[in-house]
Amino acid sequence: MPTSGQSGSRSHPARSDNPYLPFGDRRDAPFYGRDILSVRQFDKVDLRYVFGVAHEMREMVARVGSFDLLKGKILASLFYEPSTRTSASFTAAMERLGGSVIPISEVHYSSVAKGESLPDTVRTLECYADVIVLRHPEVGSAALAAEYARKPIINAGDGVGEHPTQALLDLFTIVEEVGHVDGLTVTLLGDLRYGRTVHSLARLLSLWDVRLRLVSPKILRLPPPLLSELIARGVEVVECEQLEEVLGDTDVLYVTRVQKERFENLDDYERVRGAYVIDAATMAAAPEHMVLMHPFPRVGEIHMEVDVDPRAAYFRQMEYGLYVRMALLAMVLGKA
Amino acid sequence: MPTSGQSGSRSHPARSDNPYLPFGDRRDAPFYGRDILSVRQFDKVDLRYVFGVAHEMREMVARVGSFDLLKGKILASLFYEPSTRTSASFTAAMERLGGSVIPISEVHYSSVAKGESLPDTVRTLECYADVIVLRHPEVGSAALAAEYARKPIINAGDGVGEHPTQALLDLFTIVEEVGHVDGLTVTLLGDLRYGRTVHSLARLLSLWDVRLRLVSPKILRLPPPLLSELIARGVEVVECEQLEEVLGDTDVLYVTRVQKERFENLDDYERVRGAYVIDAATMAAAPEHMVLMHPFPRVGEIHMEVDVDPRAAYFRQMEYGLYVRMALLAMVLGKA
Amino acid sequence: MPTSGQSGSRSHPARSDNPYLPFGDRRDAPFYGRDILSVRQFDKVDLRYVFGVAHEMREMVARVGSFDLLKGKILASLFYEPSTRTSASFTAAMERLGGSVIPISEVHYSSVAKGESLPDTVRTLECYADVIVLRHPEVGSAALAAEYARKPIINAGDGVGEHPTQALLDLFTIVEEVGHVDGLTVTLLGDLRYGRTVHSLARLLSLWDVRLRLVSPKILRLPPPLLSELIARGVEVVECEQLEEVLGDTDVLYVTRVQKERFENLDDYERVRGAYVIDAATMAAAPEHMVLMHPFPRVGEIHMEVDVDPRAAYFRQMEYGLYVRMALLAMVLGKA
Repeated sequence: MPTSGQSGSRSHPARSDNPYLPFGDRRDAPFYGRDILSVRQFDKVDLRYVFGVAHEMREMVARVGSFDLLKGKILASLFYEPSTRTSASFTAAMERLGGSVIPISEVHYSSVAKGESLPDTVRTLECYADVIVLRHPEVGSAALAAEYARKPIINAGDGVGEHPTQALLDLFTIVEEVGHVDGLTVTLLGDLRYGRTVHSLARLLSLWDVRLRLVSPKILRLPPPLLSELIARGVEVVECEQLEEVLGDTDVLYVTRVQKERFENLDDYERVRGAYVIDAATMAAAPEHMVLMHPFPRVGEIHMEVDVDPRAAYFRQMEYGLYVRMALLAMVLGKA
Repeated sequence: MPTSGQSGSRSHPARSDNPYLPFGDRRDAPFYGRDILSVRQFDKVDLRYVFGVAHEMREMVARVGSFDLLKGKILASLFYEPSTRTSASFTAAMERLGGSVIPISEVHYSSVAKGESLPDTVRTLECYADVIVLRHPEVGSAALAAEYARKPIINAGDGVGEHPTQALLDLFTIVEEVGHVDGLTVTLLGDLRYGRTVHSLARLLSLWDVRLRLVSPKILRLPPPLLSELIARGVEVVECEQLEEVLGDTDVLYVTRVQKERFENLDDYERVRGAYVIDAATMAAAPEHMVLMHPFPRVGEIHMEVDVDPRAAYFRQMEYGLYVRMALLAMVLGKA
Repeated sequence: MPTSGQSGSRSHPARSDNPYLPFGDRRDAPFYGRDILSVRQFDKVDLRYVFGVAHEMREMVARVGSFDLLKGKILASLFYEPSTRTSASFTAAMERLGGSVIPISEVHYSSVAKGESLPDTVRTLECYADVIVLRHPEVGSAALAAEYARKPIINAGDGVGEHPTQALLDLFTIVEEVGHVDGLTVTLLGDLRYGRTVHSLARLLSLWDVRLRLVSPKILRLPPPLLSELIARGVEVVECEQLEEVLGDTDVLYVTRVQKERFENLDDYERVRGAYVIDAATMAAAPEHMVLMHPFPRVGEIHMEVDVDPRAAYFRQMEYGLYVRMALLAMVLGKA
């Protein structure tokens, strides 16, 4: 879908915090036929709408497991690189809504190997499906696909570019776990330089009145342009290298992996790695109400002993991802 | 299914051009339980039947998207070599009819790697599924599978052998775009020697009163036995090397790829390649009512600038493929 | 699911041989929420229950093909190594019950390649699915997964460990083909040393009053500890090297492959291989009522000429596998 139509998103009324949302074939649904390409396309009104629908999805799943809102609809799940978690989550989202999935994960062996362009591939798939979820290693590929496709494209990650549904589920986790966003102190920990996840989340958070604590090794700091952008939007930011400096005031701790490969000097890596691992001792020093998040997979950043801590929200976070993806699918297909 | 039972196809009455076809469990359906192995098994009565059902599938999809004609039925989609387009199309066809799919695309890693024979594999899968779609690199494999299977086999391409559903969708495209076949001048362009697609289409077209124009480099001409067969069936055939010689009289232009690998002498390739590429200039010289087709994927044979031309039918062609495959699945399962 | 809860299986009443089993949401179902990890967790009461439900599944499929007992339920099919037959069978089982499947077969490329642990992977998937079927090359992996997962885990083979659904379908085949187990003489042929299939089946059979005939090359005899276990349970066992010694008294002949790789000395292999191949001559010497089984795939152990013999039960055996897997899925999801 051409993004031009998306300016229409401003015209819909703000949803109340806990609205009654009648499911049905809503051609007037504000996201009907739209693409989901970037977190930048969402303002607070949009986000409240997404989270309102996602919350209802959560309640429906709790009550009935699955329901037939998208019965007869088909999702083409087009993954140019594997991502078990994301593809499984979208497949489950479609199936819990009564829809079907065309899984396409061998594109590297197939038409594409024969040299077919992404525009041709998506225009082929939209002949068969009602919506396309696209994972692709190249930045901008989702936007390129959307330029050519008549059916909605949902970006499931395009290289170091965007992964908007991850950012939305991260924010939705905070909303559901805490109940609000304004006034929170959110600490982002680990690799803040390369992680597109934390970049997107930070941007979304900056729409609210939050404080950010950025804890990372010096060489993995948040990119300066993004830091400036956040500050310009009025976010109170503190950067440091040690979690303990900010842990006591943290409402939400978002952990990411510090990858060995990022360090030129392995001594540097060995020196800092311990500071970015969460264990029972860390949790003992953390506020009782803190919410601990991680985008997963984890490889040692959070010890398994922490899993039983009720503050460990990372498995619930994945479940919230299901509800957000259910919401987005229902919305772009005009059913919410 | 043994092909012997297929002679029964002659006994059903010719369908009118726009019949009312009541869906239901029709044990008297003329294709019930049959295999779809080759275009040679279809006469004009059969083809009219297939296209009648496919046309109704088109109308049903336009009206309701999906419906439950094959609810509870299971398709085993057995691909020994990848083919994104064909497998996605069959999966969508089954899902739009309310059925389910068992996707099996890793056969080279699995039982087959353990040395299992094709007859054993299909007799295993028919324990689980109601119909099997088979793609295999070896000629005759679909017929071999059908010899052993009790459930219907649909050939989705067996090497340089047959790909009957492609030929059927090609012809259906002409029927739907033009409204009739008799009297048409169809130009086949490109690699006419190795392309099984054009061979099958030419055979099907020869059942009608058509003129064929065969445009190819000398070394990629239609095989002489097939040429003789077509002429013997009364088709008026003209062979040439330049599209411009026949473009003005062409009602349907079917483009295929001229592969570099086919040429021993690369100079020969460089000399001819330009003559087999369709661009805006080609279209400016073509009749206004012409239908432009391509089996896809394309790699430069048709410029993207042509895509917006209403005569460019290649994306609609893929959609017609969905309807033809829906029709075939419903037919062999006794529902149409 | 923690296995501790499984002791509850003793409390349910023995099912009559041909009971009326009302389908529905049975929270009191004896296997509701349980894992299926090992044949050792089943006693005779359990097995009768499983086979009672499987028999009803067989009748339902014969009558209506598919039905909506698990509509809205989602199976995550997690295969760390390919197994076309087993995964296709579970997928078909779920789909014939109206449920959906998340197929995950590229785990080696994906999160796992990023180093994710099995506990994290299953705890992720249970956020999306209602039940997880796991195939994994390492012994004990299914039990490990079950230890962490809240949702039921079904072991679809863990290396040289267990493959309980294969053993259950083998025994169910005997029950359905013969009508009873007590009093039968069952001959196990081929590689009895390494085949986990025959080990599990022998253990299950030892719950009944059976005679076992173990026919294998000397180096591929049943492991002595298992042999002792069987004898201790009162099974009458005869070991020999030639099938003809016991064929005349055999009610059920279970054939497995003798793999060349097992022999250090290829002369030994060449000398014995012929004795472990079933052909028309073997069948001519076998009892008329004998049931011939094989877990498949076969690579020459049973000639194709035998396939038309009504005693050849190996394709029906696969179909029984579908019913057993339908039964297990329905049972652990509380619907039977």
